[in-house]
Amino acid sequence: MSSQPEKLTRSQRKALEAIFPGEQSGFTVGELLSCGVDASRLHARPLALVKPRTTAQVSELLAWAQRERIPVYPRARATNKVGGCVPVKGGVVVSSLNMDSILDIDRADFTATVQPGVVTAHLQKKVESHCLFYPPDPASLKISTIGGNISTCAGGMRAVKYGVTRDYVLGLEAVLPGGKVIRTGGRTHKNVVGLDLTRLLVGSAGTLAFVTEATLKLLPLPEYSASILCGFSNLSGALEGAQAVFDSGILPTAMELMDHNTVKALELHSEVPWPSGTGGLLLLKIDGSVPSVEADLERMFTVVQDSGPTFVEQGAGEDQERLWELRRVISPAAFNLAPDKQGEDVAVPRGSVARAIEGFHSIGNRLGLTVLCFGHLGDGNIHVSVMYDKSVDAQKEIALKAKKEIFSLTLSLGGTLSGEHGLGLTKGGYARMQLSEDEINLMSGIKGVFDPHNLMNPGKAV
Amino acid sequence: MSSQPEKLTRSQRKALEAIFPGEQSGFTVGELLSCGVDASRLHARPLALVKPRTTAQVSELLAWAQRERIPVYPRARATNKVGGCVPVKGGVVVSSLNMDSILDIDRADFTATVQPGVVTAHLQKKVESHCLFYPPDPASLKISTIGGNISTCAGGMRAVKYGVTRDYVLGLEAVLPGGKVIRTGGRTHKNVVGLDLTRLLVGSAGTLAFVTEATLKLLPLPEYSASILCGFSNLSGALEGAQAVFDSGILPTAMELMDHNTVKALELHSEVPWPSGTGGLLLLKIDGSVPSVEADLERMFTVVQDSGPTFVEQGAGEDQERLWELRRVISPAAFNLAPDKQGEDVAVPRGSVARAIEGFHSIGNRLGLTVLCFGHLGDGNIHVSVMYDKSVDAQKEIALKAKKEIFSLTLSLGGTLSGEHGLGLTKGGYARMQLSEDEINLMSGIKGVFDPHNLMNPGKAV
Repeated sequence: MSSQPEKLTRSQRKALEAIFPGEQSGFTVGELLSCGVDASRLHARPLALVKPRTTAQVSELLAWAQRERIPVYPRARATNKVGGCVPVKGGVVVSSLNMDSILDIDRADFTATVQPGVVTAHLQKKVESHCLFYPPDPASLKISTIGGNISTCAGGMRAVKYGVTRDYVLGLEAVLPGGKVIRTGGRTHKNVVGLDLTRLLVGSAGTLAFVTEATLKLLPLPEYSASILCGFSNLSGALEGAQAVFDSGILPTAMELMDHNTVKALELHSEVPWPSGTGGLLLLKIDGSVPSVEADLERMFTVVQDSGPTFVEQGAGEDQERLWELRRVISPAAFNLAPDKQGEDVAVPRGSVARAIEGFHSIGNRLGLTVLCFGHLGDGNIHVSVMYDKSVDAQKEIALKAKKEIFSLTLSLGGTLSGEHGLGLTKGGYARMQLSEDEINLMSGIKGVFDPHNLMNPGKAV
Repeated sequence: MSSQPEKLTRSQRKALEAIFPGEQSGFTVGELLSCGVDASRLHARPLALVKPRTTAQVSELLAWAQRERIPVYPRARATNKVGGCVPVKGGVVVSSLNMDSILDIDRADFTATVQPGVVTAHLQKKVESHCLFYPPDPASLKISTIGGNISTCAGGMRAVKYGVTRDYVLGLEAVLPGGKVIRTGGRTHKNVVGLDLTRLLVGSAGTLAFVTEATLKLLPLPEYSASILCGFSNLSGALEGAQAVFDSGILPTAMELMDHNTVKALELHSEVPWPSGTGGLLLLKIDGSVPSVEADLERMFTVVQDSGPTFVEQGAGEDQERLWELRRVISPAAFNLAPDKQGEDVAVPRGSVARAIEGFHSIGNRLGLTVLCFGHLGDGNIHVSVMYDKSVDAQKEIALKAKKEIFSLTLSLGGTLSGEHGLGLTKGGYARMQLSEDEINLMSGIKGVFDPHNLMNPGKAV
């Protein structure tokens, strides 16, 4: 859309300032540049930044934007890794950070009602103080928001047992392009009246409506949890260990895998508890009542011991955090192998994880780049980090070549380009590798029903 | 649509017979009447019955139906309680009963791929023989099908811990009106590429497309389960017992409630284990590994004992079936109170269950009808049976008056008209009590994207 204006007219700016007085709107170069970037490091410069405090303001904004045909870009803390927040077609960035209240936590209803700018970890801590539990736990949870999590249908480590963000959104208040406010779903844990607009909005990447409030399902807080970290001499040992756990009748809360390159990166970064010769790691967590966790931990320990590990270490309660710390430092540790990283979050059918990872390694070996594979084995969602050095020769281009090959292999195994990050800008161009023309037409049709003038986060929908 | 033809033209019938030779199509009065009714006891006479064996046949049919502008009514075993299968606008009933193969059960991928006509209990038994688990368990599971379950987003007893059908559908093959075949989602447990067409189709009541194949998510089979049945002198005792279980950090597999009228109906029907003076029942189930179930059973037993029950009985493994048998016979037992029944499946926020049930009883008392309340307390989904005698005075009309009051009260408590049955014909007329004009417009718009000529199960979409 090269026809997008490069700046607002005077009357447009005046209109925005009338809706968003004082510090609620920003037009300086500094403000515009800083709200034009996200965790993908891609960036673009919008025409304005606004920070609504109320649903009414969002409604006024979207009515104005539709009249003026100006694009609108929802944004929270911009932890998005795929450029989902970047205002590629100019327009107005709408920050949800002034809408960050927890409106209600209800122990009887097992619900929380929140505004989109609430930080996920903050909500979790709050509900836990009421003996309640909000399971979705994207790795970014300490800095990402519920609004962002809804936008991407964020997953996380606990998805194996508890599912993803979609499974915890019971109702939404959202503003449609043009300014109408809808309320979908509600506070009930089940609801099958009409088409499921609530779950259609979850994961729609802000391309259909601006979410102003969400009612989330909570669970009773599990009393206790415990974890096991175990090493194997190679990847297939780790995969066999995982299958043995499932076979024992245990549904773990989390089941994370780390390949030999991840092991190497961690060894270069931290003190590690495993012996040399460890070529794959499995990190498992279980939760529940104290006696049930103790019983299952004992069983899980026996089961993984039988799978021939190089070492096994377990921890319960607070003590397990040292095991998880190793998982959490993978991202920084990876830079011990090369200064630049290109990360994907493909998912494959669980039984194809071994073939996928072996294939990703082959691609790296052939192209001369190190490929780290780690992540959510329990649901086949593998984070693939292609490490390179952009200061060397054509390494950036080679990394992009690797990306395309990784996608091709993923799809040939029946997989998907994204398990939890979404398409955004970095994968948008590859969508047609996965989706058929007919699916894309349906998605475009639905987009048109909500947003006939293509003003909500344009450039991101399929 | 009074303009619908009352019978097929000769060439139309010929065209159908060409696609569905021999016994694959039916046109006799007997065949047409028997495929025009469902478990709601509502009925209408279609123009033809066809029984495809392949996706290609469904595609040919939908292409033909669109050219001829003839409605199409998907049907499996018609256990639908709300008239969802009734061909109210003439047209062709499409039975999925010849598409009843389990195509694949994959222990490594944790998936099953099935045709729509597979009976749910049959699939469950099959996957259990592979140590896998398909959790959704609508009460009809021995006679209802996966296709029907997908169409209604069927719930069931285990939804408290495991969620509903939506949470287990990973991918679909479906034929669009006009005949195009799409494949949404896939075999991966996570997938966030584009809008979520898969979950939009789940629960759409056959109004968007005809599902010809589904890939379902499976879990490891829990090794063991146990149940507790406990009586309380009144409803609030039972609700306190339930809260105490949640507070103890246990997430039960199932949490069922029965009110005093249900207790009475069961007492008139069977030998019951509880003492007189019992005015509310709680039936709880847990599952997991043997030691974890044993540990949690002991804790749950202590917790409910502390809530002052009139009696507590527990069972594990096979032995718990006698406890569940009492839950299963509620439907026939209810007819001990009156010969006719009008059943609803409203859901309310969990904390409003007491107020809802008390209110439903008041409505019954005021109108002189007995109201039974029982069902899925864990997710606030209450089955409300208004018992009446249609041979007496205006009791049928009074029951309908009760229905409207039940819906009004439900909505005033923030509830929903249906937790798992859907709207269909019996509740379609009440949809606007719950949904706003804007929501209905969005749903109609989405319907139009899939089905511009309103040929898929017309009369059922909002």
